[in-house]
Amino acid sequence: MYSFRNDYSECCHPAILERLSALGTQANPGYGTDSCCAAAAGKIRSLIQCPDAAVHFLIGGTQANMTIIDALLRPFEAVIAAESGHIHVHETGAVEGTGHKVLTAPGADGKLTPAMILRILDSHMDEHMVKPRMVYVSDSTELGTIYTRAELTAISDLCREHGLLLFLDGARIGAALCARGNDLTFADLPRLCDVFYIGGTKNGALLGEAVVFADPELARDFRYQIKHRGGMLAKGFLLGLNFDVLFTDNLYMRLAERAQCLAVRLRDGLAARGVPFLVDSPTNQLFPVFPNEELPALAQAFSYEVSGAVDETHTCIRLVTSWATTEEAVDAFLAAVHSR
Amino acid sequence: MYSFRNDYSECCHPAILERLSALGTQANPGYGTDSCCAAAAGKIRSLIQCPDAAVHFLIGGTQANMTIIDALLRPFEAVIAAESGHIHVHETGAVEGTGHKVLTAPGADGKLTPAMILRILDSHMDEHMVKPRMVYVSDSTELGTIYTRAELTAISDLCREHGLLLFLDGARIGAALCARGNDLTFADLPRLCDVFYIGGTKNGALLGEAVVFADPELARDFRYQIKHRGGMLAKGFLLGLNFDVLFTDNLYMRLAERAQCLAVRLRDGLAARGVPFLVDSPTNQLFPVFPNEELPALAQAFSYEVSGAVDETHTCIRLVTSWATTEEAVDAFLAAVHSR
Amino acid sequence: MYSFRNDYSECCHPAILERLSALGTQANPGYGTDSCCAAAAGKIRSLIQCPDAAVHFLIGGTQANMTIIDALLRPFEAVIAAESGHIHVHETGAVEGTGHKVLTAPGADGKLTPAMILRILDSHMDEHMVKPRMVYVSDSTELGTIYTRAELTAISDLCREHGLLLFLDGARIGAALCARGNDLTFADLPRLCDVFYIGGTKNGALLGEAVVFADPELARDFRYQIKHRGGMLAKGFLLGLNFDVLFTDNLYMRLAERAQCLAVRLRDGLAARGVPFLVDSPTNQLFPVFPNEELPALAQAFSYEVSGAVDETHTCIRLVTSWATTEEAVDAFLAAVHSR
Amino acid sequence: MYSFRNDYSECCHPAILERLSALGTQANPGYGTDSCCAAAAGKIRSLIQCPDAAVHFLIGGTQANMTIIDALLRPFEAVIAAESGHIHVHETGAVEGTGHKVLTAPGADGKLTPAMILRILDSHMDEHMVKPRMVYVSDSTELGTIYTRAELTAISDLCREHGLLLFLDGARIGAALCARGNDLTFADLPRLCDVFYIGGTKNGALLGEAVVFADPELARDFRYQIKHRGGMLAKGFLLGLNFDVLFTDNLYMRLAERAQCLAVRLRDGLAARGVPFLVDSPTNQLFPVFPNEELPALAQAFSYEVSGAVDETHTCIRLVTSWATTEEAVDAFLAAVHSR
Repeated sequence: MYSFRNDYSECCHPAILERLSALGTQANPGYGTDSCCAAAAGKIRSLIQCPDAAVHFLIGGTQANMTIIDALLRPFEAVIAAESGHIHVHETGAVEGTGHKVLTAPGADGKLTPAMILRILDSHMDEHMVKPRMVYVSDSTELGTIYTRAELTAISDLCREHGLLLFLDGARIGAALCARGNDLTFADLPRLCDVFYIGGTKNGALLGEAVVFADPELARDFRYQIKHRGGMLAKGFLLGLNFDVLFTDNLYMRLAERAQCLAVRLRDGLAARGVPFLVDSPTNQLFPVFPNEELPALAQAFSYEVSGAVDETHTCIRLVTSWATTEEAVDAFLAAVHSR
Repeated sequence: MYSFRNDYSECCHPAILERLSALGTQANPGYGTDSCCAAAAGKIRSLIQCPDAAVHFLIGGTQANMTIIDALLRPFEAVIAAESGHIHVHETGAVEGTGHKVLTAPGADGKLTPAMILRILDSHMDEHMVKPRMVYVSDSTELGTIYTRAELTAISDLCREHGLLLFLDGARIGAALCARGNDLTFADLPRLCDVFYIGGTKNGALLGEAVVFADPELARDFRYQIKHRGGMLAKGFLLGLNFDVLFTDNLYMRLAERAQCLAVRLRDGLAARGVPFLVDSPTNQLFPVFPNEELPALAQAFSYEVSGAVDETHTCIRLVTSWATTEEAVDAFLAAVHSR
Repeated sequence: MYSFRNDYSECCHPAILERLSALGTQANPGYGTDSCCAAAAGKIRSLIQCPDAAVHFLIGGTQANMTIIDALLRPFEAVIAAESGHIHVHETGAVEGTGHKVLTAPGADGKLTPAMILRILDSHMDEHMVKPRMVYVSDSTELGTIYTRAELTAISDLCREHGLLLFLDGARIGAALCARGNDLTFADLPRLCDVFYIGGTKNGALLGEAVVFADPELARDFRYQIKHRGGMLAKGFLLGLNFDVLFTDNLYMRLAERAQCLAVRLRDGLAARGVPFLVDSPTNQLFPVFPNEELPALAQAFSYEVSGAVDETHTCIRLVTSWATTEEAVDAFLAAVHSR
Repeated sequence: MYSFRNDYSECCHPAILERLSALGTQANPGYGTDSCCAAAAGKIRSLIQCPDAAVHFLIGGTQANMTIIDALLRPFEAVIAAESGHIHVHETGAVEGTGHKVLTAPGADGKLTPAMILRILDSHMDEHMVKPRMVYVSDSTELGTIYTRAELTAISDLCREHGLLLFLDGARIGAALCARGNDLTFADLPRLCDVFYIGGTKNGALLGEAVVFADPELARDFRYQIKHRGGMLAKGFLLGLNFDVLFTDNLYMRLAERAQCLAVRLRDGLAARGVPFLVDSPTNQLFPVFPNEELPALAQAFSYEVSGAVDETHTCIRLVTSWATTEEAVDAFLAAVHSR
């Protein structure tokens, strides 16, 4: 069975396993104070062209989101997200578990706009309501869409004008940066955002997310916060090692481009067969809509998530390509789809 | 330089890396719903002779402690620990971060006794004070000491009599179970404790702690709690894989015994040289006391933690052996120590 | 200037001040363990025809909401509310501050329906999302609307079928129970709800909300929870005294009816003048819509809250009558309004 | 029966009830934005000679403590208190409920010293432990003892040197400021402390604690925090009214002095009869020790708290005088005590 279920189904890129094996029984300093973490942080600072950035390595996305948001907000402050945002829907209330409300704006494509944010600011004007203090965006989003540089700049400008922090969840930043229509670069991120992370888990790492604060003062005592929220890994060198490998010889973007390339092949093939999409996603998450009667046959040969019913006779599914997806899998899927 | 700094400095046992490599680009179900986790849980249930136990895999000790304690306590309920307990001293307030107070009893050897627990119960009698609801013990403790079966049984009996839950932190349970003087077995744990975990991080795993609830009803909705507290690993199969390997052919106890064997060699060698110990630890953590003037030379050739000043001219250091420690390292250390 | 700003602007009914004066320098047991609290609780149990109910007195509505919700939910569990619900909009994230997410359903009239609740249940099906566990309704609602017995029964039935707790915020239950169209009684509340409160603050008390758990087992250790969340009043006898007076000779409903009577007079008068309403509220909160140019004159003579712009030339204001509102005030307002 | 149980048993000073009655049906702005609160805040600023201080009125002590501490600390920061401190022992984990650890130092008399604080700072040196950020002292303490100006100045100096905030719980500051041996004044408080409160509940108010931040910047958005933690009273004008009355014609200190005067009479009388004290308290809380066989007779005629067994045959009780205690009560107690 071929899997299009997600981009974190496979173990990790072989280069990472090789580096792990090379460690042997070497003794490493604990908790991320090792040379692998230092090297990886240095590479990331170069990549984003921000020599003063504070870089910390966390284990996963939900943990990164709750740890960062809680570090930067006072108890009564809230974070603004799209209604489909991961922190709002898919984290079992982890952000609320740290005491903070998530304010949401509806939107068909998973993206926030300055107008949405302004509407929330305008309706929160006194101490009987939470105080909006941060804007959370994902790139790419839950629906596979991306922000252009102009869009993210407009949000960033609004945030600075209104004293809001801008936090970009980059669990799939690799997919975003090589997407059709993207004009953002790594170097734009610290310029536009106060804090963001570069996702490893969904782009070939064994595990790990690299959290970046453009201004190191904002990261003051962040290691206390990581430990306080349960996220400090004893063998922190594992996280550094993953990113050190991924940011050697541009492996990170090469893996993302491979996933993107296969997503394009899959999208174009489906489009050629007349299959409609719920969202026009330019990244490695596709949301095609199928007649219900075609799904049982597909489900026997392919693994994927069901997004939901579109109407009584049609269902949207999610197909995700990864660094490990094969052309063979894509072609097999396309072969299994009837032309309309 | 030889390291006696801790038992989580090295990557992991080679058998684990082999299994990781064998995964290749196989697609695995996410979040711990895979066959590795199922296999590992089955092996653990056999090992502890508790076929109904609920087994969950978490990433690290602090995360396990806060997630478990918060899952089982109501907001105003508290957990009782030794004054040197990890949750009290070395977790940056992670348990308090979930809203719960840690009540402590002083004790020279890192262990709780029924008398200490009773004293706390007796002084907490109304709603103006927190309600003690759980007892937290570590085996082995922060000071390397262990509980005998009689001692743990006495605490367990007291807990049941007073409606307290008993939680055993087994981050170093391997070290405890092969210690000199130990008479506990894995099968005793679910019989005496409501919840405990078997530590992987400190005994050869890449990462992971296996949390066991003797009564599965107590683990109801625990997966929600894991996710809520940021501890659900996307590639959860990694955790299952580690424990599947460790509980194949008794590797887990073989690794612990190797560390123990070298700790005995180190302890006996130091004792033969007249070096005194702060605590009489029967496990892989040793606390020898040295004249201050001897330490600079030791520190140049060996890495270890300084526990603290004993008096104006003496300092206690901590030496930890691991599954990866070599006889050569032990002998080098002994050779560097003057006989008194 | 006449005030229609809210129903908690005035001190309290004179009968309460008289009872306070009568206390003199009598020494009372602290923290609500006094005879006033016992007497008031007894009167409430009679009133609601639920002899086993657990009754606790809290100081205010936000405090009651957060204390109750947090007492009954596990960390990852969530409460369902209308989008306009007080806990969602007007409590500065107090519920989230205790760690729980508020899930909302949109609705024009401030009320929840079984269909809305079902939709939320259907979209929360695994551990990656919070677990809905409680339904929160207000009667009367933020928009002055009320639940009929049939409506509340349908919600109650749904809750029981799906294992949800039903919590009714009765900060304005007096207003609801004497509203046009109401067919609920005090005795219905413990039959249909798991927990509710009878608001004092907005119906003539100096301060206080009487929290009622139909099943005392649900209130187990609730006094610990009150103290833990900062809500235990040292002079708790003050709270009991207020409710003891309010539930003597039916004063509570007499005060509510007086407010209701004046609300009817105001509503009918406005309707007769052709003034439209944003919501058809049958209680003491009215939401008339005025041309913007009429407001400056009204604002000079009357105090009220502005609800918001309806369109570019019209604004909705909120007029609230209380136990202390006078016919003179109502008539003066009506006299100031032009007929359309 | 005469009560020496506590200083918050009685309703309130008659002057407060008179002012309440005078309110009649006057409509007041809600949530503390009224003229009573403004007037009271002004009087307090004059009293403490700190014209820029931010003054907020809260309902009770536990609420004030948790709201203030949580407002000023980041999630991983901790507060230092005496082992007998109210926040540590008698608040059912309210501070931990907001996520913060309480670090304690033992001490026989309920007071902290610079040496105790330094010892805690010295043992908390990295991110694996909470970060001490605030010192909490009470004046008078749980044991009725007080801080001299030199003692509080030494703590204040230490705090400033180490970047710690100093918070003084003044629930019984009236008792402290008229105690034998006191040399502190109201004007010293904002000079030495970052935040403190002046207790109303235990000195004649119906309810209320006046929270003072010397530097208004430290109180930024504090009204959000009050609401977030459930402490914003709808009828906030009640709190302002209490303090407006108490700080008119020096009533606050006159009430405290009356309690103090009777405490002296009681202490001297007991001492004359040879009764020993557990602590040498100079304030309105006395801790005499009685042979167990004398207590049943005392308990029949007088109400008091039992502090605890001193040895097998002696028990310490707590006697508290208040603004409402009578000479008759004191003399009756003394008459009931046998001379040794």
